[in-house]
Amino acid sequence: MPASNEHIVIEAVRPELNGGRYRAKAVKGDTVDVTADIFRDGTAVLAAVVRCEDPAGNTSESRMAHFDNDRWRGSFQVLTEGRWHYTIEAWTDHFSTWRRGLLKKAEAGQATGLDLEEGALLIERRLALVPRHSRGVLENAVAELRSRSATATSFGEEEIEAALGPEVLEAMEGHPDRTGGTFYRPLLELTVDRERARFGAWYEFFPRSTGPHGSHGTFRTSADHLATVASMGFDVVYLPPIHPIGETHRKGKNNALLRQPEDVGSPWAIGNRAGGHKSVDPNLGSLGDFDHFVETAGRHGIEVALDFAIQCSPDHPWVMEHPEWFHHRPDGSIMYAENPPKKYEDIYPINFDTPDREGLWRELHSVVDFWIAHGITIFRVDNPHTKSFAFWEWLIDEVQRERSDVIFLSEAFTRPKVMRLLAKLGFTQSYTYFTWRNEKGELTDYLEELTQTDMADYFRPNFFTNTQDILTEFLQTGGAPAFKIRFALASLMSPSYGVYSGFEFYENIPLRKGSEEYLDSEKYELRHRSWEPEDGTLIPFIRRINQIRHDEPALALLTNLCFQSTDNDQVLAFSKTIPGRDAILVVISLDPFSTQETTVTLDMLQLGLDESRPYRLDEMLSGAAVEWRGPKNRVTLDPLGQPAQIFKIGAP
Amino acid sequence: MPASNEHIVIEAVRPELNGGRYRAKAVKGDTVDVTADIFRDGTAVLAAVVRCEDPAGNTSESRMAHFDNDRWRGSFQVLTEGRWHYTIEAWTDHFSTWRRGLLKKAEAGQATGLDLEEGALLIERRLALVPRHSRGVLENAVAELRSRSATATSFGEEEIEAALGPEVLEAMEGHPDRTGGTFYRPLLELTVDRERARFGAWYEFFPRSTGPHGSHGTFRTSADHLATVASMGFDVVYLPPIHPIGETHRKGKNNALLRQPEDVGSPWAIGNRAGGHKSVDPNLGSLGDFDHFVETAGRHGIEVALDFAIQCSPDHPWVMEHPEWFHHRPDGSIMYAENPPKKYEDIYPINFDTPDREGLWRELHSVVDFWIAHGITIFRVDNPHTKSFAFWEWLIDEVQRERSDVIFLSEAFTRPKVMRLLAKLGFTQSYTYFTWRNEKGELTDYLEELTQTDMADYFRPNFFTNTQDILTEFLQTGGAPAFKIRFALASLMSPSYGVYSGFEFYENIPLRKGSEEYLDSEKYELRHRSWEPEDGTLIPFIRRINQIRHDEPALALLTNLCFQSTDNDQVLAFSKTIPGRDAILVVISLDPFSTQETTVTLDMLQLGLDESRPYRLDEMLSGAAVEWRGPKNRVTLDPLGQPAQIFKIGAP
Repeated sequence: MPASNEHIVIEAVRPELNGGRYRAKAVKGDTVDVTADIFRDGTAVLAAVVRCEDPAGNTSESRMAHFDNDRWRGSFQVLTEGRWHYTIEAWTDHFSTWRRGLLKKAEAGQATGLDLEEGALLIERRLALVPRHSRGVLENAVAELRSRSATATSFGEEEIEAALGPEVLEAMEGHPDRTGGTFYRPLLELTVDRERARFGAWYEFFPRSTGPHGSHGTFRTSADHLATVASMGFDVVYLPPIHPIGETHRKGKNNALLRQPEDVGSPWAIGNRAGGHKSVDPNLGSLGDFDHFVETAGRHGIEVALDFAIQCSPDHPWVMEHPEWFHHRPDGSIMYAENPPKKYEDIYPINFDTPDREGLWRELHSVVDFWIAHGITIFRVDNPHTKSFAFWEWLIDEVQRERSDVIFLSEAFTRPKVMRLLAKLGFTQSYTYFTWRNEKGELTDYLEELTQTDMADYFRPNFFTNTQDILTEFLQTGGAPAFKIRFALASLMSPSYGVYSGFEFYENIPLRKGSEEYLDSEKYELRHRSWEPEDGTLIPFIRRINQIRHDEPALALLTNLCFQSTDNDQVLAFSKTIPGRDAILVVISLDPFSTQETTVTLDMLQLGLDESRPYRLDEMLSGAAVEWRGPKNRVTLDPLGQPAQIFKIGAP
Repeated sequence: MPASNEHIVIEAVRPELNGGRYRAKAVKGDTVDVTADIFRDGTAVLAAVVRCEDPAGNTSESRMAHFDNDRWRGSFQVLTEGRWHYTIEAWTDHFSTWRRGLLKKAEAGQATGLDLEEGALLIERRLALVPRHSRGVLENAVAELRSRSATATSFGEEEIEAALGPEVLEAMEGHPDRTGGTFYRPLLELTVDRERARFGAWYEFFPRSTGPHGSHGTFRTSADHLATVASMGFDVVYLPPIHPIGETHRKGKNNALLRQPEDVGSPWAIGNRAGGHKSVDPNLGSLGDFDHFVETAGRHGIEVALDFAIQCSPDHPWVMEHPEWFHHRPDGSIMYAENPPKKYEDIYPINFDTPDREGLWRELHSVVDFWIAHGITIFRVDNPHTKSFAFWEWLIDEVQRERSDVIFLSEAFTRPKVMRLLAKLGFTQSYTYFTWRNEKGELTDYLEELTQTDMADYFRPNFFTNTQDILTEFLQTGGAPAFKIRFALASLMSPSYGVYSGFEFYENIPLRKGSEEYLDSEKYELRHRSWEPEDGTLIPFIRRINQIRHDEPALALLTNLCFQSTDNDQVLAFSKTIPGRDAILVVISLDPFSTQETTVTLDMLQLGLDESRPYRLDEMLSGAAVEWRGPKNRVTLDPLGQPAQIFKIGAP
């Protein structure tokens, strides 16, 4: 026989990942909604609260309300970063049950003195839970019920309402009797990050490409370049690995097997005699120069994200110092990376199952700590899916216990369930399939998956238009309009997005037809660009949109995205709203070649618009204002002019 | 740091209810499919098995196979009733990983002797896991790989395939090395029932209504009536409560507050001086007569289901013996049932939270045991949602531990989540919303919920056309065709279905307009019917369909239901199939008033039909055969003739 006759069921709680095995995510300042199915046997009235505990151990609770079909909702606001806990407590509200029944009986003329006496007893029993100074109101109610009960045999609704005034209900609700209630188990956890975890415009560049007149760039020349990056409005610069680059099997330009003496090599072949993951490439300068670069970025309001690529060139110090951290072949040689028929002789993968697992994992942890000590709080993790799941969960947890401000971006372009798991294990943000989603149906489906399913609870997308390895066919063939379209989609749909350098210059030549790789990729050579003049580049467009992103809080959120209907498959429309603030409506052509027209049909209710009145829209790229009326309005988009229109609709 | 570097993730297992909190269900003989997301970090090949343990503790396992997007499927057959356990074990298959890479390298002309030696070592290490008599094949493979490795520097695919023949692969797969593998936790449980849990045609009747010439029926007259019930092809007779009926506040005909002396009362007002839940109403005869009735039913191939209604008349012996099992009011009186403004003064509900919880629960358990001892193995539980959830879970578990053949049917017409929970808590079968689903969209949505969502894993519907309290508007107004339509839908869509007596006579007069209650309801009075002649009744239709249900195994299953497309909203078409057996196609009009025509568009692939050849359909009600060609064919349904056509399509 069970120890208690538990009446209440709490299930289907959200957010909850894998039965509480993983943590959901939120951002400081968020109001976290918690929903659950809550019900009991029988017909009694329930009450429920969300209880939460902040990272300092302070607890609080707030009432949940039933909203539909045994589903309840409550919320709590998270005002500090770190690890929060939450659960649900529900109990039977015998007083409300009695009151509901009594009012129904009164309506039918059936309420008797005995019914009133039952209420008096319920209130009387509650007195012990009420602070002394608040007891008067309840004692009065008891007396009132008993005096009515003694003087009449039947009671009307008004009479009962009079005996149980709002102050009585408030006192009873404020001091509930939770006996026989139920706590949801397990206790659920939530990671609360700073805002950059969700919102930020990223810009990638190779420090070595910033040198003047074709020379090898340094942290100093990179620091000078930051003014240009800042003027485009970016929030984060991401640097490919900055460590010494291997000499053994160094690849030549365009990934040639044989290098020329002057070839600079791929920075992902990490380590040489000058050091490994805790060193900087001497060609870029000293650690002091790096610190100066990070400080300069900070003065520009820019954060620096480092690449964390756990792999070694054959010349990495770990190869000599810790050969047991690598895979060995029967002839004693160390296994290089391969994906047959591709061979990466310049790279040794790490063996996460090494007998010295503790030594390896702690050393990797110390690499992250080393760069945190040099002011780095964002790590873009290279191919995390080819490393150990258990390692990432441990590392991110360990790091964030000390430093809740550290952000990890998962660069995993792999199968969907693996990408989701990495986010559940703790990665703050994730690369996505956005890069290849060009059609309306694909974009709609993918964004609805990201914003409407439980992925919204833990998977934060960072939409990259390109990477150093990915120049999509759409960009190769669509000319400047394709770059505008992809930039606008990335930056306006997702609060975090990024571009890799060269994007602003419409660089679109692939290594060969059918390849997504760049010709003369920066991975293997220096690449010089000139940021002046801006005419004929994407820079003014980038700057304007980054400005709009900073001005409009609705664009800093993800799950507020809502698609609006258009009658043209080449035109996508979506809104982003925050109750009581200006709404944003984006109408964007997906066709880089021809002018497209469409009727946009707005969800007036969702946008807070009145069917009967005209409303004003300010198009923020052109500065033009238009007046619309009703849900259906016509929009024309010219790829050579402005393939996207970004409307601000004033808060009602 | 975690204790191990666990690589493999197993999640989203199905069947699994609330993280293993509740048991899924199957029927003896079923092949239970188990699916899960299984994947690991990195790119190595995985292997997985479903492991199961039967009620006697015998374990077995079977391989799972990847079928789509990191989703795997395996199965096990359940050949004994009772409680089964199952889980998943997955591990990294290093040998297959090596072989896959080697073949890719060979294809690219990159396979070297070193690659072969790695395979030889992998096989050699496996020898310890292989029984001595099977080692030869692996030892030969090692020698073969090493000899090739010694004599050449590069290898083709054919050469590798030759060194690793099918007997080598079989030996390696048959004796896997599961080191570093993962067991899914928690261990999952499954209730395996006998077939009646899923398949059965139910017929309700009041024993007291079977008396000759208007007299009060008995178990003896009821036993005589069983021949008639058996001739209609029913599998189960369900009897309303057979216990002594209370005198205090007994209701009159049509639920009148004041009774006449001759009124027989509602059998749900259980208990009087003659006894309570373990007694029979003396007007029906003795316990011996009841036993004779149950034996007679058995001879007819019919099982008897009893009503288990946990409530008491004021005259029930428990009221005197265990007043603490009831709710008391401040004046010392016992609370009767009410749902304001409705009052049920003839019924006392039970207080499941009584301080004597142990005494009450054990007594209720003993009631079930009492009737089991009298040959009863099916209980139709009255309003279980108004009793204690915890009690039901405990009771059903306790009973089925001893007697896995005992079936509990939940008569809960309440909110969907409560109905689902009762099924999760252990109820074998459940009443449903079918009774009120008349339109095509409603029926399609509801059946897809029952068959395509995870409800299929634990919620077994029993489709009732009517109950003693529910005469739907459709039946009140649609005449005989409405009865045929509802009967055909219930009996052909759901393997378990039932009718309450009177249905076969098209009884359709409500208590009053707008009410679903019957006029002159059998709940409050005797009701005499004549089963001869059958002309003008639904009996021949019932008999024929029950025969078809017994002849066609596809109709004994639920989740094999598949809707087929029709272009008329008044016509529903669905198939039921079992691979390799005859398929059943039902086309049924939902309109009791007018002839309806439709083009049925069949899913030819799903039905195993060939687009290029004509195929024969045998219509089983009329005996007519038709020949169709291609997916689109025309059907006409006349409500006054045959509103349903039931086609058998021969197995290809």
